[in-house]
Amino acid sequence: MIKLNKDERIDDLQFKNLKIIQNKNKFCFGIDSVILSDFAKDIKKGSKVLDLGTGTGIIGTLLCEKTELKEIIGIEIQTDMADMAKRSIKLNKLENKFQILNEDIKNIDKIFEEKSIDSIVTNPPYKKTNTGIKNINESILISKNEIKCNLKDIIQMSNKLLKENGSIYMVHRPERLAEIIEILKYNKLEPKKMALVYNKIEQAPILVLIKAIKLAKPFLTILPPIIIYDENKNYTEQILKIYNKNK
Amino acid sequence: MIKLNKDERIDDLQFKNLKIIQNKNKFCFGIDSVILSDFAKDIKKGSKVLDLGTGTGIIGTLLCEKTELKEIIGIEIQTDMADMAKRSIKLNKLENKFQILNEDIKNIDKIFEEKSIDSIVTNPPYKKTNTGIKNINESILISKNEIKCNLKDIIQMSNKLLKENGSIYMVHRPERLAEIIEILKYNKLEPKKMALVYNKIEQAPILVLIKAIKLAKPFLTILPPIIIYDENKNYTEQILKIYNKNK
Repeated sequence: MIKLNKDERIDDLQFKNLKIIQNKNKFCFGIDSVILSDFAKDIKKGSKVLDLGTGTGIIGTLLCEKTELKEIIGIEIQTDMADMAKRSIKLNKLENKFQILNEDIKNIDKIFEEKSIDSIVTNPPYKKTNTGIKNINESILISKNEIKCNLKDIIQMSNKLLKENGSIYMVHRPERLAEIIEILKYNKLEPKKMALVYNKIEQAPILVLIKAIKLAKPFLTILPPIIIYDENKNYTEQILKIYNKNK
Repeated sequence: MIKLNKDERIDDLQFKNLKIIQNKNKFCFGIDSVILSDFAKDIKKGSKVLDLGTGTGIIGTLLCEKTELKEIIGIEIQTDMADMAKRSIKLNKLENKFQILNEDIKNIDKIFEEKSIDSIVTNPPYKKTNTGIKNINESILISKNEIKCNLKDIIQMSNKLLKENGSIYMVHRPERLAEIIEILKYNKLEPKKMALVYNKIEQAPILVLIKAIKLAKPFLTILPPIIIYDENKNYTEQILKIYNKNK
């Protein structure tokens, strides 16, 4: 029996009977994490994977089912979020593959050896701390803004921990793409696969997905667009596949 | 009366009565140049513009009609291409705005003063010299491969010649995007606007358009996708607009 705290609920992912505990007053996962998990489903069999800033544990949970990874460790700085994620793992009986570490991303090179990780996934805070209206809820603030860590922290740490030919998968806002590519390349992580996500085909993209490989040669494959809604405002076949049908 | 050499023909752009002289045995312009000209139509009134690697002069010709630029100089290393472009300018009566310089891009800092140019447009050779099958026609080889100049040459020279807040507009292959962004940022040219061009919406993109501004702050706007063909293999409304109707 899994204990629920005040304001928590259990959400059914409608995918292989997976469930996620969320708190209505804290950061709840969105379609970005679901699409990133699908984008990262080429993670190799037997991989040791880190999820940097795991939040509710949504990405790790989905990757346990979508890939044949050996183990994934979700790093989460917020103790209550980490605790929720741990309970979701029990709920889904994924304890043999998925662990949560309540730790600051900037410290994990004291925990993991250099060049010991096969793949890293991350849905980091999208906003710079000096931009936009601040969210008054501190927990959500930390999840959405670069307060505890920024792009450079995450990418530098990824370079340190990834093996040669190891991969990092990231979802972010399109307006940050140039910075992301610059920082990845500076840290010897070569962008190899990219996709843009559009709410509707006639609009600007809302998300960018990027996979980089450590010490790879330059050649970027940009995938066909991922479109969320069709002209009738229903999910497209692409999205339905990502949510329900994909391995 | 404009003289045509052997194997040359006059192509009607079906836009404001503009015409371009082309030679069937040399590089002929494609939809990439036409789309780039449209992408660059926010070039400001009164601008001094360079087209680096002007070829047939297609981009300069279209920009003379699509923008209120003051003058544009097309740089072309191949003497016979430069000569064709000069005759197209006469044919279109654009001599008061559009000149051709038969020169190596790598030498033009001896001709133009540093920080004297408002905007640069370029449809450079797409391929690295060490990749792909070589074209046996030397003229086409130079137009398509980085033999006489490469990405770095073009972007370094652009940084040198552009004024602060000056802009560069480039079309290229999607697989080079990460390199392009890295080299732009290294040269203080901040990517500010980008679009991907797709043959069909369900396929990978075939081209990327990018505008960078010298010494601007990071924030990249990615536009809605540009799709060339609809499901019936006809040009989309977007493309018809670019070809015929846009100012």
